[in-house]
Amino acid sequence: MKQLSTEDFSKMERIERLNLINSCTGYKSANLIATQSIDGKSNIAIFSSVTHLGSDPALIGFIVRPTTVPRDTYKNIKETGYFTVNHVTESMIADAHHTSANYAPGISEFEKTNLEEEYKEHISIPFAKGSPIQLYCKYVNEYYIAENDTIHVIASIENIFFEENLRHDDGWLQIDKGNVVALNGLDGYCLPKLIDRFQYARKDTPTKSFLK
Amino acid sequence: MKQLSTEDFSKMERIERLNLINSCTGYKSANLIATQSIDGKSNIAIFSSVTHLGSDPALIGFIVRPTTVPRDTYKNIKETGYFTVNHVTESMIADAHHTSANYAPGISEFEKTNLEEEYKEHISIPFAKGSPIQLYCKYVNEYYIAENDTIHVIASIENIFFEENLRHDDGWLQIDKGNVVALNGLDGYCLPKLIDRFQYARKDTPTKSFLK
Repeated sequence: MKQLSTEDFSKMERIERLNLINSCTGYKSANLIATQSIDGKSNIAIFSSVTHLGSDPALIGFIVRPTTVPRDTYKNIKETGYFTVNHVTESMIADAHHTSANYAPGISEFEKTNLEEEYKEHISIPFAKGSPIQLYCKYVNEYYIAENDTIHVIASIENIFFEENLRHDDGWLQIDKGNVVALNGLDGYCLPKLIDRFQYARKDTPTKSFLK
Repeated sequence: MKQLSTEDFSKMERIERLNLINSCTGYKSANLIATQSIDGKSNIAIFSSVTHLGSDPALIGFIVRPTTVPRDTYKNIKETGYFTVNHVTESMIADAHHTSANYAPGISEFEKTNLEEEYKEHISIPFAKGSPIQLYCKYVNEYYIAENDTIHVIASIENIFFEENLRHDDGWLQIDKGNVVALNGLDGYCLPKLIDRFQYARKDTPTKSFLK
């Protein structure tokens, strides 16, 4: 196996280091975060850092780097307190990727792509139309990560919208039925397929499939 | 689409809520974190919260819930300051899942599964043999997340080991060449395949593939 150390990282060109370090932790979720400014301007941007934090209460976290793009997302969340998380499907990947382009603040990526705003009853923040799982989230807190000047945003899941065919009787959403993609690094879009689902692991008992 | 709210979540049985909330944020990385206690006992446990935080310096984060399993992982990291992150391949999923069983503190999951310890020169912490991407990481800091009593561990990547055939000229590691899996919820193991890789997004310019 090839081995690279921190000394090797420091000698790398910026783009090579970005590609290597972004791809070395494994697959990442591909989510479009949609927001609205206090004066009603929509924004949508792709994020790969949305992480499950806990189920009771239902909490997620994601990382923003406030000094770089996407700036509008963080500003809008701070203004309104709310945002939506929308899963990216195979047919949305080119548009989802384009939301990472460096548009001037206030420009809506909904206008620059084929992504369409969808509005739900009693919710003023847009969703991404056609996304098979959509979360309506409320800003709860943030933790400043001093080591690299980023912010870990903590949010509660207020509502989950999903296509009914994804849901199993025990609450589990089978994401591959929605053609949802995963990210490999900054720019590699992958389509996962379920290979097995296992029952709760018990000590000294072989792993049992749910499916077989 | 089906809609569920916080009120619905609170009425759910615990397992149904766990399944729903764990699966609603999208695909997650599947990583085995291996550690060693100060008196030399090995431990390995599956995590789905390892997230890229930044490339310069190379930083990752992951979430631990210190009051539940896997307890040994966090204790060992605090004792030695180091751990390894190992990608899970298709052939490792049953054993990887079994590491989530509730063994008594001090019991090594390496002894309870077919997962094998691998040692590298000048590193005392074990890796998972056969994993195509392995990271040697150093504990840097932690942030207590008060909202649900979890800890966000921040670590630097000190060394990356990877199979050379995964690497592209621009530093990107193509993970699907290593048969690495992603997680859907707590227990769904999925095999992703690359569908496209895009060039850096530029405003008012259509998304361009790297591959076509």
